[in-house]
Amino acid sequence: MRLLDIFASSRPKGSSAIAKERLQILVAHDRTERGRPSYLPTLQRELLEVIRKYADVDMNAVSVSYEQEDSREILELNIILPETARR
Amino acid sequence: MRLLDIFASSRPKGSSAIAKERLQILVAHDRTERGRPSYLPTLQRELLEVIRKYADVDMNAVSVSYEQEDSREILELNIILPETARR
Repeated sequence: MRLLDIFASSRPKGSSAIAKERLQILVAHDRTERGRPSYLPTLQRELLEVIRKYADVDMNAVSVSYEQEDSREILELNIILPETARR
Repeated sequence: MRLLDIFASSRPKGSSAIAKERLQILVAHDRTERGRPSYLPTLQRELLEVIRKYADVDMNAVSVSYEQEDSREILELNIILPETARR
């Protein structure tokens, strides 16, 4: 199963799922060289800056998760957008 | 199962998996209002510009997939990074 299919199937289904305008961003970095510092934390700030050009992002509505396992780092951003967001 | 767990478990395992420096980016946009044009294609270009500040991205090593289903759009970027990439 492709990653994209897995991602797509993770959407909440059923009548209990409330329609919300939201953006989810996952960044996975597979590294072969572990000596260098990660740039994902800095990348995260820049990604948010880019997204704020397009959507009215309330920083209180952004949840961030960062995990590291072996040589893979994963950054996850979940953003609830206001329904009226437009620029 | 959390989306992050699903994403993390999608990594190829076993002796046949060759260690490669790579970056995967998934952006999912759940929209409540379908009348507006999507900004994901434009966002894609800007995301790549941000990433190129940190990694030596060969545009021939970038594969892009875009899918739309009901009110969800998903953009997927897969980038194979050169092993020596550093800036």
